[in-house]
Amino acid sequence: MPLIEPDGGELVNLLVPENQRSASKSEAELLPKLIINEYHLQWIHILSEGWASPITGFMREDQFLQTIHFNAIRQPNGAFVNQSVPITLDISDQDYSRLQNADAITLSKSNGESVAILRDPEFYANPKEEYAARTVGCTHTGHPTVERIMKMGAQLVGGDLEVLSPIVYDDELDHYRLSPAQLRMEFEKRGADAVYAFQLRNPVHNGHALLMNETKEQLKAQGYKNPVLLLHPLGGWTKDDDVPLDVRMRQHDAVLEDGVLDPISTVISIFPSPMLYGGPTEVQWHAKARINAGASHYIVGRDPAGIAHPETGQPIYDPFHGMKVLQMAIGLEKLEIIEFKFAAYDKVSGTMGFFDPSRADDFLMISGSQMREYARNGETPPDGFMGEKAWQVVAEYYASIN
Amino acid sequence: MPLIEPDGGELVNLLVPENQRSASKSEAELLPKLIINEYHLQWIHILSEGWASPITGFMREDQFLQTIHFNAIRQPNGAFVNQSVPITLDISDQDYSRLQNADAITLSKSNGESVAILRDPEFYANPKEEYAARTVGCTHTGHPTVERIMKMGAQLVGGDLEVLSPIVYDDELDHYRLSPAQLRMEFEKRGADAVYAFQLRNPVHNGHALLMNETKEQLKAQGYKNPVLLLHPLGGWTKDDDVPLDVRMRQHDAVLEDGVLDPISTVISIFPSPMLYGGPTEVQWHAKARINAGASHYIVGRDPAGIAHPETGQPIYDPFHGMKVLQMAIGLEKLEIIEFKFAAYDKVSGTMGFFDPSRADDFLMISGSQMREYARNGETPPDGFMGEKAWQVVAEYYASIN
Repeated sequence: MPLIEPDGGELVNLLVPENQRSASKSEAELLPKLIINEYHLQWIHILSEGWASPITGFMREDQFLQTIHFNAIRQPNGAFVNQSVPITLDISDQDYSRLQNADAITLSKSNGESVAILRDPEFYANPKEEYAARTVGCTHTGHPTVERIMKMGAQLVGGDLEVLSPIVYDDELDHYRLSPAQLRMEFEKRGADAVYAFQLRNPVHNGHALLMNETKEQLKAQGYKNPVLLLHPLGGWTKDDDVPLDVRMRQHDAVLEDGVLDPISTVISIFPSPMLYGGPTEVQWHAKARINAGASHYIVGRDPAGIAHPETGQPIYDPFHGMKVLQMAIGLEKLEIIEFKFAAYDKVSGTMGFFDPSRADDFLMISGSQMREYARNGETPPDGFMGEKAWQVVAEYYASIN
Repeated sequence: MPLIEPDGGELVNLLVPENQRSASKSEAELLPKLIINEYHLQWIHILSEGWASPITGFMREDQFLQTIHFNAIRQPNGAFVNQSVPITLDISDQDYSRLQNADAITLSKSNGESVAILRDPEFYANPKEEYAARTVGCTHTGHPTVERIMKMGAQLVGGDLEVLSPIVYDDELDHYRLSPAQLRMEFEKRGADAVYAFQLRNPVHNGHALLMNETKEQLKAQGYKNPVLLLHPLGGWTKDDDVPLDVRMRQHDAVLEDGVLDPISTVISIFPSPMLYGGPTEVQWHAKARINAGASHYIVGRDPAGIAHPETGQPIYDPFHGMKVLQMAIGLEKLEIIEFKFAAYDKVSGTMGFFDPSRADDFLMISGSQMREYARNGETPPDGFMGEKAWQVVAEYYASIN
């Protein structure tokens, strides 16, 4: 069975072919330049590899408006692809004055390195407050995405991107950053007839593993012969109190070493998107990007991409809205949504088990702060909560920040 | 040529048939009651006559979520109808406790009069901040819709409506309130082969008339034999500084008497929706509702349903976003969008004319505050700005508030 088709039918690849890179780099030196920040660079990475297929560059105004109003973009054939989060390049009024008549602009890192050429630029006003309100449903600057948007430049510039070389971070994690095309090749190599994606930005405990293993059994029961798990931690910008990416990757590797997940049917890779903490809006992006990487099934839990309200401390988004919106989303019809079943430590069996509300007292919820507490006290969580090597990685990390 | 089909194929009518009203009213007396406000009543009016077809009552959570995230609702056949503004009934936690187990609820005015029965109620939390942010793109309580939402009850209740008798206001304007079904009959009676709708909430000046008359000529040039204008002022709640509805209706009638618009091919009626001042989101609702009334063409101007930002005094919405979003909106494909050409007083010809930027100084813009100034000083605007009788209505109104 072939893998699910990418949005728009063909995976976008904005990387200049190797035999033309030298010419493109020479051209880039001659064009007017715009310095980009780390966040822009992560989106260039996303765009260059086709995670946002069929989008071919920073959003033009018609794409931006469709994104914030409809979470979907109409294709020339009339069909809709899902696109719930804006992918924009903001610039200052000064840069706008300087660049407004350019036919092409070179996007450069602050160290001067040219990253990409933006062709046929289209400038439009950045409606910051509306951008924030319609994307994350809130305009309080205590929300990190609202804060980011309100600090953006007053103009946005869309255009078609040509990326001069593969985006790398030299953080010893680049080998985990498989592009959608590489992931598709990997799934094909493994003979996958179903790919189920699990997005996370936390350590994997045995409750997660239980869920992922059970999902595989379910898919087999439905007739799939070889379901493959895409364990796909988000690797772009996250807020400071999330567990750092390098720790998470070592922990995920240890989970495979512990034998809690089957290495043969599991692909671990990094999803290079930054976080928006945009709840039901952002979870659509997480799902849509995985379609482009070949996923046919997507696991969604409670309060995906959620965050506490900066004033009340309560979740901004209703914890069930993410799943409900995902199931109704325009352009995600071909993706099968799998409901995350909540697992907790069952004190009776001494293992992680699916939570049974009829005997709630038998279950122990072990949160991030509880794990931190165990690490501080040199204790280990109950047997069966997490594989041994995986716990060591977590314990060392928490010990280091305590 | 038959009129354009209503959304969902058939016009919703939630009015209890006359021969069952007595039985329904008796049942309503026995059910638990919920007191509604004037704003809820206006939405019941809208729902009862099918302006929001195919919606059959206050929104359930799945409709609400699709509205705020996609501005469109998926139909059982997979097609989308546009629905950009939530139509909700909010209730307090106390009323929720009292009513949560009811199978049906009677909605009553504060004077005790039963208005409708809400069947099979579905309660869900009112995510007020998100509701406001995603509907009007702003959460500043100086915006009247944000203010309204933030004061709403903590719960929403959806369900199917049965409306006990036609909604009337006894304000001597009820005869102007034609339902979509009545409008369709009127258009058929007049043999319309195109219906072009013009939404407004201001006095009509000769620049508007010029535009409406030119639209008719355009449609004739496209081959329509009998285009009919639906001059359709919004009649529900508006903010205090808008010109009151009774004044506007007298002014619109006077425009026909002045002969500035042709009475044979013009239907004047009231659109009973409240205003949200929701810009590009709300203009979709204005357009969609007119599809249900039989409109095939919709005229849209600059900054439709716009409002000044409570802090900056500048327009909240980019003045061109309304038209752009309308042209891309999901579910409005069958409606032809006609761009409003801006008309102003041409001092050279002494008439209203389409603005020509190449001789901008020849044009005089006459705003509401300018009209108010003329009226205060007992002056008349330049000849050709507005018909004589129509100006008398406006002058008397402004004199009365000066």
